[in-house]
Amino acid sequence: MDLWFSETHETDLRMSCRVKQVLYHKKSKYQDVLVLDTLRFGRMLVLDGCVMTTERDEFVYHELIAHPALLACDNPKDVCVVGGGDGGTVREVLKHPSVERVVLAEIDQDVIDVCREFFPGHTTGLNDPRVEIQVGDGFEYLKQHPGDFDVILSDSTDPIGPGVVLFSAKYFDLAKSAMKQGGCFVTQAEGMWCRSHSAVSIRNELLNHFTNCEWYGAPIPTYPGGYWSFLIASDIIDFRESLDRNRQKLIEKTTKYYSAKLQAGLFSMPRFLLLEFENDLSH
Amino acid sequence: MDLWFSETHETDLRMSCRVKQVLYHKKSKYQDVLVLDTLRFGRMLVLDGCVMTTERDEFVYHELIAHPALLACDNPKDVCVVGGGDGGTVREVLKHPSVERVVLAEIDQDVIDVCREFFPGHTTGLNDPRVEIQVGDGFEYLKQHPGDFDVILSDSTDPIGPGVVLFSAKYFDLAKSAMKQGGCFVTQAEGMWCRSHSAVSIRNELLNHFTNCEWYGAPIPTYPGGYWSFLIASDIIDFRESLDRNRQKLIEKTTKYYSAKLQAGLFSMPRFLLLEFENDLSH
Repeated sequence: MDLWFSETHETDLRMSCRVKQVLYHKKSKYQDVLVLDTLRFGRMLVLDGCVMTTERDEFVYHELIAHPALLACDNPKDVCVVGGGDGGTVREVLKHPSVERVVLAEIDQDVIDVCREFFPGHTTGLNDPRVEIQVGDGFEYLKQHPGDFDVILSDSTDPIGPGVVLFSAKYFDLAKSAMKQGGCFVTQAEGMWCRSHSAVSIRNELLNHFTNCEWYGAPIPTYPGGYWSFLIASDIIDFRESLDRNRQKLIEKTTKYYSAKLQAGLFSMPRFLLLEFENDLSH
Repeated sequence: MDLWFSETHETDLRMSCRVKQVLYHKKSKYQDVLVLDTLRFGRMLVLDGCVMTTERDEFVYHELIAHPALLACDNPKDVCVVGGGDGGTVREVLKHPSVERVVLAEIDQDVIDVCREFFPGHTTGLNDPRVEIQVGDGFEYLKQHPGDFDVILSDSTDPIGPGVVLFSAKYFDLAKSAMKQGGCFVTQAEGMWCRSHSAVSIRNELLNHFTNCEWYGAPIPTYPGGYWSFLIASDIIDFRESLDRNRQKLIEKTTKYYSAKLQAGLFSMPRFLLLEFENDLSH
């Protein structure tokens, strides 16, 4: 059977995967939810036509959105994951022994249910007693929980349509007010090749709310352009100084991408991106 | 006009780019040579259906194949680029003031001519008086020049068809014998996601010929899986110790990807790849 799934990025670039089987396809209250079994990447979750996660490469994204922040933060206990209904980020957060409570604020119950059924490797943590699932608007949830969190991980869809609010000045204000002193905020920040300007403008917005903000990237073959950006921000933490070597050594026993050595070079931006940032800041 | 170029990787993954215009298409003595003008990546050189280089992302590949070796080597004077008919690698090599002679050993004169016409940004160095173009078999050229080179950069096509010889034990032996004492050899080593096992087996083969060999990678959106592997090898140089900070600072004034900071983390392998290497070595 010559069945292919394609995602087109901004009208001129397209990634296609050969598909063994369509495992699930329904519209939820919020979005089109599709689960495919692909030859190259195993099972693949597609929301509104965009690849969200796959069995084969998910570890890169989930390790990278979680570990730098958890390791930078001193003794993190309370963590909120905004979005992230597939469970992969929660699974990584739970690897940190200091963590006492992880709130998963996901708007779409169907995404959680579908991932429990089709992505058991992602959702292993969701039944952990430390996890509290809040189905609803993450924005509203944070508003009602000021000063609650050591770490907030914004594991959202793209800043298009319903996701746009999770990249707004108002949201970053709210995230900051939902954080404890010395807390740490991370957001995914779009593709380095397809939407590098997103990372530039999100970083500049974050610097209006937080004192420190670092960019980092990771290779993710199923995301547009194959390389993804993250931003980590805090009022207190100097990310280049604060990573605890002993805790890194413990975490890297559990990872498939992240390591202490990799962390050592993680905040080094490619020069073209550095120049984009500097240019933008000088306007 | 809805015109697309597609490259299919190992039957189950496909990258497609929207095309403005086909600028050139002919069979050379060795291969099918196609030049496209694409919306996302500008001009694109395609050999036998595989993307070789594009205007927009070429700097990553060419900076990464050249600078680590040139900077690791003490006072490099004589450099050989095997393959690399597009000229991008030669351009980067010429940025190093100690270099007195660059031999470009490219088998296909048509590739050189087509790139001179359609990729002026790549070929700026080809008329430099230090450059000697040898149209012919790189394997044969090295055989006739024992002990000539400080650095050999193997800027070849994939280890399939005519390129396979440039990944063989015999070629690595030859490369070594064409190098001066303390010389340094680099080869591209295929995609991290699509052909990670290639890097593993090439590295193991290189370790049969050289004492030291390090892996490094870089994001290249037009190559299969979006992330590419390189291997750097030497009998003498400890790559983690030998990079000259002052020369790095000079080179990074000219680069769009490479920097001293980036170099600091460059040889850190993702853990899954490290485990693949270790597993393979233990067999």
